[in-house]
Amino acid sequence: MKQAAPPLVGVAALSAIVAFAAPAANQEDAFVTNIPPGYRDWRLISVAHEEGNLHSFAAVLGNDLAIQAYREGRIPFPDGAIIAALHYRHVQSEENNKVFGQDQSFVPGTPTNIQFMVKDATKYAATGGWGFAHFQDGKPGDEAFMKTCFPCHNQVKARDLVFTRYAP
Amino acid sequence: MKQAAPPLVGVAALSAIVAFAAPAANQEDAFVTNIPPGYRDWRLISVAHEEGNLHSFAAVLGNDLAIQAYREGRIPFPDGAIIAALHYRHVQSEENNKVFGQDQSFVPGTPTNIQFMVKDATKYAATGGWGFAHFQDGKPGDEAFMKTCFPCHNQVKARDLVFTRYAP
Repeated sequence: MKQAAPPLVGVAALSAIVAFAAPAANQEDAFVTNIPPGYRDWRLISVAHEEGNLHSFAAVLGNDLAIQAYREGRIPFPDGAIIAALHYRHVQSEENNKVFGQDQSFVPGTPTNIQFMVKDATKYAATGGWGFAHFQDGKPGDEAFMKTCFPCHNQVKARDLVFTRYAP
Repeated sequence: MKQAAPPLVGVAALSAIVAFAAPAANQEDAFVTNIPPGYRDWRLISVAHEEGNLHSFAAVLGNDLAIQAYREGRIPFPDGAIIAALHYRHVQSEENNKVFGQDQSFVPGTPTNIQFMVKDATKYAATGGWGFAHFQDGKPGDEAFMKTCFPCHNQVKARDLVFTRYAP
């Protein structure tokens, strides 16, 4: 009896460690499905504008850990860093253009989606340490769409998979 | 000696009160020449993109009073509200375009200037209650340039002279 106990305890403890530390087995495990709270109050990283098929205007914000890492030029980002991209249609501002007397002013139109990258080097090991999230009208993106995140971001490995640079 | 003192003190006190409460007699008095501290940590109001002769990319940030007023839809803005526009060149991102395989990505280039609107309905009464600031390389704009702020902003009186709308 006394001999059997230690291995059982040992197995339980070991499996707890494994569960806690297990890296994502595949990229589906890195799809983040909850909106990080308070993101609209985060500080500015930069702005972005995508044409092509997107016609998209973005504000890119970071939580405190992300902002700190950016300002220190720290790569890779530390666990807990979260980057948010708030996307809108890139549209002309009729009301501004009227004042300026020419078509020159573009502003955010309808919000289209909000995307997040959540850093956890262990939990999201299979996808470069980042969990990816995409929300449209509050709903997470479907699996086919989410599978496009990592392969694209993985092309900027030298920047820890992050496209956006810090705007001074 | 003792008789001369009170009038002198009285004049000094009176002129201090006048200096404190006097509304701007003209718009030159509404040129703000100090950069409000901490503005890079303020929260996001919106983003902007101006073409025409500007080719300008902006992040528009607000201090707490400005953000609160925006979120409550409060017009006019309360005294103490400050709005910051951080301007950059609107440029193509070669490094992003290389990944995307087409010219679609625009990012902030060289910072060009930082502009502020500072609300004080009494101090800046001559210019709709707003003090205006423009800094290029840390130096305030010259008088000729600064004189263009108020007449243009005054065309959006219904929005308390503020062009930028809040991005959700």
